[in-house]
Amino acid sequence: MSMKTGEVEVEATGLQVLSKAQAQLPFNIRAHNMPTEAIGLKHRYLQLRYPHLQRNLRLRSQVSKRISDYLQDIHGFVNVNTPTLTRHTSGGSHLFIVPYAAGSSAANVPPPANKCESVNGINAKSTFKSNSGDSRINSSSVLNISSSSSNVRNNDDSGSNSAISIESESMSKYYCLAQSPQTYKQLLMMGGLDKYYQFAVCYRDEKGTPERQPEFMQVDLEMSDVTAEEVQRLVEGMLQYSWPEDCNGGPTPETPFPVMTYSAAMKHYGSDKPDTRFQWLLQDAAAALQEARCGGITALQELISHPQGTATAFVVPTGQKHLSKSACESWNSLASREHGLGGVSVCHVRQDGSLKGSQLATQLNRTGGAKQLLASLGAVPGDTVVVALGPESNVLSCMGKLRLLAAAELEATGVFVRNKQELRFVWVVDFPLFEPGEDGSSLVSVHHPFTQPHPHDAHLLDTDPLKVRSQHYDLVCNGCEVGGGSVRIHDPEMQQRVLGILQLPPGDLQYFVDALAMGTPPHAGIALGFDRLVSLMCGSESIREVIAFPKNSQGHCTMSGAPSDISRELKQRYSIKENS
Amino acid sequence: MSMKTGEVEVEATGLQVLSKAQAQLPFNIRAHNMPTEAIGLKHRYLQLRYPHLQRNLRLRSQVSKRISDYLQDIHGFVNVNTPTLTRHTSGGSHLFIVPYAAGSSAANVPPPANKCESVNGINAKSTFKSNSGDSRINSSSVLNISSSSSNVRNNDDSGSNSAISIESESMSKYYCLAQSPQTYKQLLMMGGLDKYYQFAVCYRDEKGTPERQPEFMQVDLEMSDVTAEEVQRLVEGMLQYSWPEDCNGGPTPETPFPVMTYSAAMKHYGSDKPDTRFQWLLQDAAAALQEARCGGITALQELISHPQGTATAFVVPTGQKHLSKSACESWNSLASREHGLGGVSVCHVRQDGSLKGSQLATQLNRTGGAKQLLASLGAVPGDTVVVALGPESNVLSCMGKLRLLAAAELEATGVFVRNKQELRFVWVVDFPLFEPGEDGSSLVSVHHPFTQPHPHDAHLLDTDPLKVRSQHYDLVCNGCEVGGGSVRIHDPEMQQRVLGILQLPPGDLQYFVDALAMGTPPHAGIALGFDRLVSLMCGSESIREVIAFPKNSQGHCTMSGAPSDISRELKQRYSIKENS
Repeated sequence: MSMKTGEVEVEATGLQVLSKAQAQLPFNIRAHNMPTEAIGLKHRYLQLRYPHLQRNLRLRSQVSKRISDYLQDIHGFVNVNTPTLTRHTSGGSHLFIVPYAAGSSAANVPPPANKCESVNGINAKSTFKSNSGDSRINSSSVLNISSSSSNVRNNDDSGSNSAISIESESMSKYYCLAQSPQTYKQLLMMGGLDKYYQFAVCYRDEKGTPERQPEFMQVDLEMSDVTAEEVQRLVEGMLQYSWPEDCNGGPTPETPFPVMTYSAAMKHYGSDKPDTRFQWLLQDAAAALQEARCGGITALQELISHPQGTATAFVVPTGQKHLSKSACESWNSLASREHGLGGVSVCHVRQDGSLKGSQLATQLNRTGGAKQLLASLGAVPGDTVVVALGPESNVLSCMGKLRLLAAAELEATGVFVRNKQELRFVWVVDFPLFEPGEDGSSLVSVHHPFTQPHPHDAHLLDTDPLKVRSQHYDLVCNGCEVGGGSVRIHDPEMQQRVLGILQLPPGDLQYFVDALAMGTPPHAGIALGFDRLVSLMCGSESIREVIAFPKNSQGHCTMSGAPSDISRELKQRYSIKENS
Repeated sequence: MSMKTGEVEVEATGLQVLSKAQAQLPFNIRAHNMPTEAIGLKHRYLQLRYPHLQRNLRLRSQVSKRISDYLQDIHGFVNVNTPTLTRHTSGGSHLFIVPYAAGSSAANVPPPANKCESVNGINAKSTFKSNSGDSRINSSSVLNISSSSSNVRNNDDSGSNSAISIESESMSKYYCLAQSPQTYKQLLMMGGLDKYYQFAVCYRDEKGTPERQPEFMQVDLEMSDVTAEEVQRLVEGMLQYSWPEDCNGGPTPETPFPVMTYSAAMKHYGSDKPDTRFQWLLQDAAAALQEARCGGITALQELISHPQGTATAFVVPTGQKHLSKSACESWNSLASREHGLGGVSVCHVRQDGSLKGSQLATQLNRTGGAKQLLASLGAVPGDTVVVALGPESNVLSCMGKLRLLAAAELEATGVFVRNKQELRFVWVVDFPLFEPGEDGSSLVSVHHPFTQPHPHDAHLLDTDPLKVRSQHYDLVCNGCEVGGGSVRIHDPEMQQRVLGILQLPPGDLQYFVDALAMGTPPHAGIALGFDRLVSLMCGSESIREVIAFPKNSQGHCTMSGAPSDISRELKQRYSIKENS
């Protein structure tokens, strides 16, 4: 046979069909024929045949291998698996609970043989069993026999354990699926494992979003005797080392990553997750507005009456041409609905330097303040100036959101704002340690209660706790939080003090405070959201594109039908009400 | 300062205390001062400072890294993480269930900010929150915004999904913690990921033993277009490659590992997990006893009346001197209590070749059959011959157990039987595909319903299913099951047929049978119990010695107090009865 491309000619003499596929598939694997997410997830095994998902999963695998190579081979980290079945601590409403029945009398049935490859449910005795009677015999291996004595001793000791009461076997008990290995990795530092890492599966009982799944993966690490900067340099090196070559997210990022304080991020980007791929920074407009003799403007008067009041603006270049009227109106309602503001003022800059598009625009034209404002903001004709007045925290967070919406709006009309290939990492530091709780009087941790206060601010802990900065650091990329970590509290007295300020129930973490007192090296660490990191590298819109079998946005697996109802017997076993 | 060993002299000019330890610790870390398991586990962070646990965890980390290097760098496997929150299939009584409340209306509260390093429970809104109002704003990142449209589409499609009904949000639903990634890894083969591996956390709702934990780790792998032998060679290479140098389990094992059929293992070792470090093989004694004209012995008559009847013996060298009378008596009661036998006969061989120690011994002396029996078994004066009569399966499993007990008995008196440093791997193959269920009439899988029948036996599926061998293989070491795998069914008709024979509810696995029909390559795989493998390498008696934070034999973590009771509110959220 004459072939253009092939060098090898194969002459078939026979054909054996190893496996057949049905003629009609739910969808054909063609680049022009992408199934909807619902259809794709239902037949995920088919969808995985698409080249982009093949690439994503292989790239994910490659990156995780490189991260292991870097941490373990180059830096001597120890890969330790910590439990996912952990203690439930009070107040957790977004954690999965797991009833544990094996310890209860109701569940006093012999365990099935411990087969390595068994399958959920369907190897249970009621349907089919694993070696039945033999299993007890076979499992009496040498290991079992030789350690039976220590086993008995352990049972006795548990019963006399004074600090942790082992209650009657008929009481139901509950594990909790770990939200992170935080306490365990700190306990590892106390245990002398001075460089720990793990690809940890973490759980949260909440609906899926493009960025969230009920279970997700973290690159989790902790080190003894290091500074925050040393952890940051390590992570930068790790990302450089593991950066894939055929990466949609562009070239290997340059290090070190820039550092931005929390207050600067809030001030300039209106977010602690600044998207630094484009400017359009928030700017203080209060001085310019006051100089512009806008005293007659009601909103400005209102602003001045607030002690925390501010006026903030950002400039959208060429906004006049590209921002639709409906978009600007939706911002106004968003500002009042979600941020408690009176609204925002959108002012388009005419060719003659006058403003239009809002009441504020008209007023500034009238008082002659438009010119001063534009000069201070650096706005030119054709631009749009967005101004908001009100309490500072409301204004900043609202304007941070509008900045992103404005960018998306311009991009939707084809204007270049952000380089989608580019990944802009930034460290955000000096977060506050506490913030007001929902009841207004209590304090809550901005991150978690193990974060070390900033050494310059520790003296304010009792007098002005909201002013205390923490030694927490976030790694942010393109407006997403990719990771977060901190220098931890290693002094039991400081830990007790922080728990006291937070008014957390003392019992839950007493064992941890006790452990800190037994000789704890100073330590720090970080956790990176691995799904999100890989989705950034792949240029994927959702972490579901880098997970083999993700749940849908409802947290369901439509392929297998999970979660599902369970039998009446099983509900009885776990004391769950029927028809609840 | 004059120092014997040091080459470097350090002159301290100051001292800064970074961290203090309390004077009295629960126990001091000294080689001569090992805490009981209960005390050790309660203060695991202290116990981890012992050199042997430091070594075990570091060795575990090193072995897992080498396994990844081998599979991924050398053999091109793709590391894929499969879900642990899976569908519950009917009949599973040893699986953890996980109520999923995020999808129900009762749990309709906004999620907290998605912090990477949060801690179980204690970052919930009721105690302290993560960025409160800001979180909604901040999480509206670019990813969120750009994919909101696909999100909406997904919701719509889910509602119209005909095969999987998405029920009212007020219904409680349940995940199940995966017992293994079995179905997922097969689905990956269907998805074109032709070489998959994963260090998978697996779950079983049962009490801990030295070999078992509620959560444990498997090295899980699957390949397309391979034979059972190719999987076995790959695993042998993996173990050779990853074998640690400073290993208590002796030198790197030689490969290939010997292969033994299930029937040979049962016949010679009375176990499908043969400990091949010592002989003392079970031998058929029926012919010798019959030739010895023992027709008058009641037990032998009884034996002959059973169609499956057998007489089996094994020889304990020097048993006469080292086996205590009480041990032999306990075997007798074990044989009747656990194996439904009339008992076992223990016959010590006198210097003159006559027997003593049991009724059978006296009878054999009388009929003159002792000599023939000893000759056929190869027993010499001073040895002990253990004989059991009865139905074959009962006798073999009982004798397999007694063989191990006899070895432990001799070792306890200081006799060398097994080299504790040695690891003797063996592949056990040709298992039966089915065995009788507990009700006597139904059939159950010996391993799982995805195992391919042996090609020579497939014609017996309908006529004599108990005779059908499977293409399953177990990796056994020193009497422990280290791993198990099989060639899988890839033909949907065969899969449907096997599920039909097992009378499994058709709904649970219909999606899987449907998936098989969409073009499935022939595939095979295996899973190794990683905790157990490492404990063999470390020479540890229990897998708890190679796990950082294990549960105790009750399945509890006495350090943190897990599992624990949960609040009334939480029980309401999950429809769990109060005071159950």
